[in-house]
Amino acid sequence: MPLIDIAKARLKTGSIYPAPYGAEMAGRSSIRLGEAGGLSQFGANIVILEPGAKSSLRHWHLNEDEFVMVTQGVCTLIDDHGRFEMGAGDCAAFPAGDANGHHFVNETGEEARFLVIGTKAPHEVATYSDIDLRVEMADGTATFTRKDGTPYAADDA
Amino acid sequence: MPLIDIAKARLKTGSIYPAPYGAEMAGRSSIRLGEAGGLSQFGANIVILEPGAKSSLRHWHLNEDEFVMVTQGVCTLIDDHGRFEMGAGDCAAFPAGDANGHHFVNETGEEARFLVIGTKAPHEVATYSDIDLRVEMADGTATFTRKDGTPYAADDA
Repeated sequence: MPLIDIAKARLKTGSIYPAPYGAEMAGRSSIRLGEAGGLSQFGANIVILEPGAKSSLRHWHLNEDEFVMVTQGVCTLIDDHGRFEMGAGDCAAFPAGDANGHHFVNETGEEARFLVIGTKAPHEVATYSDIDLRVEMADGTATFTRKDGTPYAADDA
Repeated sequence: MPLIDIAKARLKTGSIYPAPYGAEMAGRSSIRLGEAGGLSQFGANIVILEPGAKSSLRHWHLNEDEFVMVTQGVCTLIDDHGRFEMGAGDCAAFPAGDANGHHFVNETGEEARFLVIGTKAPHEVATYSDIDLRVEMADGTATFTRKDGTPYAADDA
């Protein structure tokens, strides 16, 4: 059935980031709407940010377009251009290959939410702007390395 | 800049449907958000339905995933499973190749809006459930035919 029962969609918590970065993702979860609806070509998720939480570490995608619409509360977009407060209905787009690292932070005292759409490319590289980290995604497996491609270990942080 | 100025995004009106079907699309327009944000891998549009308007003729996509979130008012989803009233925040998904013709109709007296995301496949076929019409999209060109592939002419409607 096309109609998505949001209350039954999978809620994803935690982080795939290696230590010590995973701990920075506390207060961030996501509702997997596209998965619930049987989509495979792009992800469609509601990201929930508790007060103080961030959507991700600041990064950009090599091969995947991304689109965001805030659906609740206020999210602050932080990217190479500055800081932008976004309320419900405000939208942003991040074309594949644009090396403009970005993330969303909830700097308010109330829960905030946004819908995020991202292409599911067969092979993807995301580069983290503020730290020596990149991730390669292939066949559903994420491999984190330093930016020079050498294996990442927490000691390197 | 990632932040999309919705007031400056292109507003698309009218219809590419051949006669006599184009006239059925009165009261339907769309704001081209993904285009404004420089995206190429999927479309991201706000569809505006005046009272009585419909999003499209009922159809399904062969190669393109589709995702919808109602953002204002009430839209009635009509598909092979029935009729479903959707309010702001309600979502629906239509996986590529699922032969479940669908569209959205505004049966209220107030404007309704939804966000629609659809993959941009290099080659696409959409089939219209209730009439003898299909469309093939390739290299940005839409070619309407009867379902047996013969050329469409208005006399055939």
